[in-house]
Amino acid sequence: MDALEPIERTLEAAIADAGPDCPGRLAAALRYAVFPGGARLRPKLCMSVAWACGAEDPALVAAAGSAIELLHCASLAHDDLPCFDDADTRRGKPSLHRAFGEPLAVLAGDALIVMAFDVLANGARECPQRLAPLARIVSRASGAAGGIAAGQAWECEAEIDLSRYHRAKTGALFSAATMAGAAAAGLDHEPWRRVGELIGEAYQVADDIRDAFGDADALGKPVGRDAALARPSACLEFGLQGAIARLNGLVAEACASIPPCPRGAELAGLIRQEARRFLPEDIARLAA
Amino acid sequence: MDALEPIERTLEAAIADAGPDCPGRLAAALRYAVFPGGARLRPKLCMSVAWACGAEDPALVAAAGSAIELLHCASLAHDDLPCFDDADTRRGKPSLHRAFGEPLAVLAGDALIVMAFDVLANGARECPQRLAPLARIVSRASGAAGGIAAGQAWECEAEIDLSRYHRAKTGALFSAATMAGAAAAGLDHEPWRRVGELIGEAYQVADDIRDAFGDADALGKPVGRDAALARPSACLEFGLQGAIARLNGLVAEACASIPPCPRGAELAGLIRQEARRFLPEDIARLAA
Repeated sequence: MDALEPIERTLEAAIADAGPDCPGRLAAALRYAVFPGGARLRPKLCMSVAWACGAEDPALVAAAGSAIELLHCASLAHDDLPCFDDADTRRGKPSLHRAFGEPLAVLAGDALIVMAFDVLANGARECPQRLAPLARIVSRASGAAGGIAAGQAWECEAEIDLSRYHRAKTGALFSAATMAGAAAAGLDHEPWRRVGELIGEAYQVADDIRDAFGDADALGKPVGRDAALARPSACLEFGLQGAIARLNGLVAEACASIPPCPRGAELAGLIRQEARRFLPEDIARLAA
Repeated sequence: MDALEPIERTLEAAIADAGPDCPGRLAAALRYAVFPGGARLRPKLCMSVAWACGAEDPALVAAAGSAIELLHCASLAHDDLPCFDDADTRRGKPSLHRAFGEPLAVLAGDALIVMAFDVLANGARECPQRLAPLARIVSRASGAAGGIAAGQAWECEAEIDLSRYHRAKTGALFSAATMAGAAAAGLDHEPWRRVGELIGEAYQVADDIRDAFGDADALGKPVGRDAALARPSACLEFGLQGAIARLNGLVAEACASIPPCPRGAELAGLIRQEARRFLPEDIARLAA
């Protein structure tokens, strides 16, 4: 079975659920923003952690992973807007506002945020007592208190706090993924924060490498933006070999931070395997 | 005691809770979008219904009302954006994007949506089993399935479905207010939908009247927009006297629709009293 099948099915049901009370163009914009997905790294991580923790409610696990993915899709839709990155392409096709116009890109982002919590509440029918911790993990990861909205808003400050910026903009949803996986299994989620943070940092380094050495066509989005915009970048700082060494170090540290759980060793294997796909093969080979 | 004190306190705590992980300008934008409030009609309605239903958890009731108010504030921030109404003023001061710029207006709206669910999950600590119905009431009222995002998105369609447009854009949060009040008390919320819908329709008629006959300075927002944009309006259709008669008829129908509950008669009195304040005194006098 495709490991992501429960996620795709949950996302599909959530989009379809809007039904006739959703205006047609908004429905199309929502679908466009969510399908086809990228690597679905965050829901995959959430599901792997839930599995490692012995979660027994598959609907709740799929809801948690899907909620995180919907928030990720919402943030891409809004980050691409003309008032932020003004991006023309995303996931290899025109960005949402280029395809549907700015009003629908704003509204689709809003509706996806709402949908994340709707999916979560709907998925918690069998385990209502797990909803509050899950909803709070997801809300803290996406809101003003160190979540993705806070991350993007650091760009509006005169002085940017870089470590907070990356932790909020990229790290927050990765730590939400590991914490939500544990919470969906009914475990204390706090010890899982660090694992997600480290994977998020590794992903950020990989993103810097892709931006510096990747191919826009293959990645489906523009490259060379860090250098052009003088943004901080692990690659510009350490060079390709140094950045890849840092990426590998972070992944190893993430695996070493896995809290005791029924399938911790298997989870470490899954994380290492997934992290190998953070970089396109040609770049990974460059460094080998 | 001021009936709204628990709402203002909950909103204040939610904004303050963002703490040092919230960039300073985003924190200021959030505060600006929420304080000072308008009439806080929706949370007041939610609290009145919860009281009439005999709700026994004040923190949950305040959380439900505050969540609805936060979603309302979020929708105002986004509706005022240049790509929608491009409004210069709101609640008697510059609109959010005029005061803080477009990026922060987008992000503050996003963060307020997230905050609504965070407040709800935090307020449900003592009654975790009531969180799922409340979260779903609130999410349906604000998302793509007939919620405020759907309402605004009807403006992006070639043909607008007017009854769905008003029901989603204005009615949804009013019916969420009555339903959430009942759900916070642990009652079946569905019978409360119609009461909120009717109050929402009455409010829409009052809004049309204010737009046609009100004073921009007193209202704190532009007037005459319906006529200028050829938007449908109860006032343009029925005239002032006719529109006021319709408003009163809707309020009476709302009161007659109150489901059996411990303090139904008192609730009807509160609704009539509140509805008298839908219109500025000078306009109400014009029709008397």
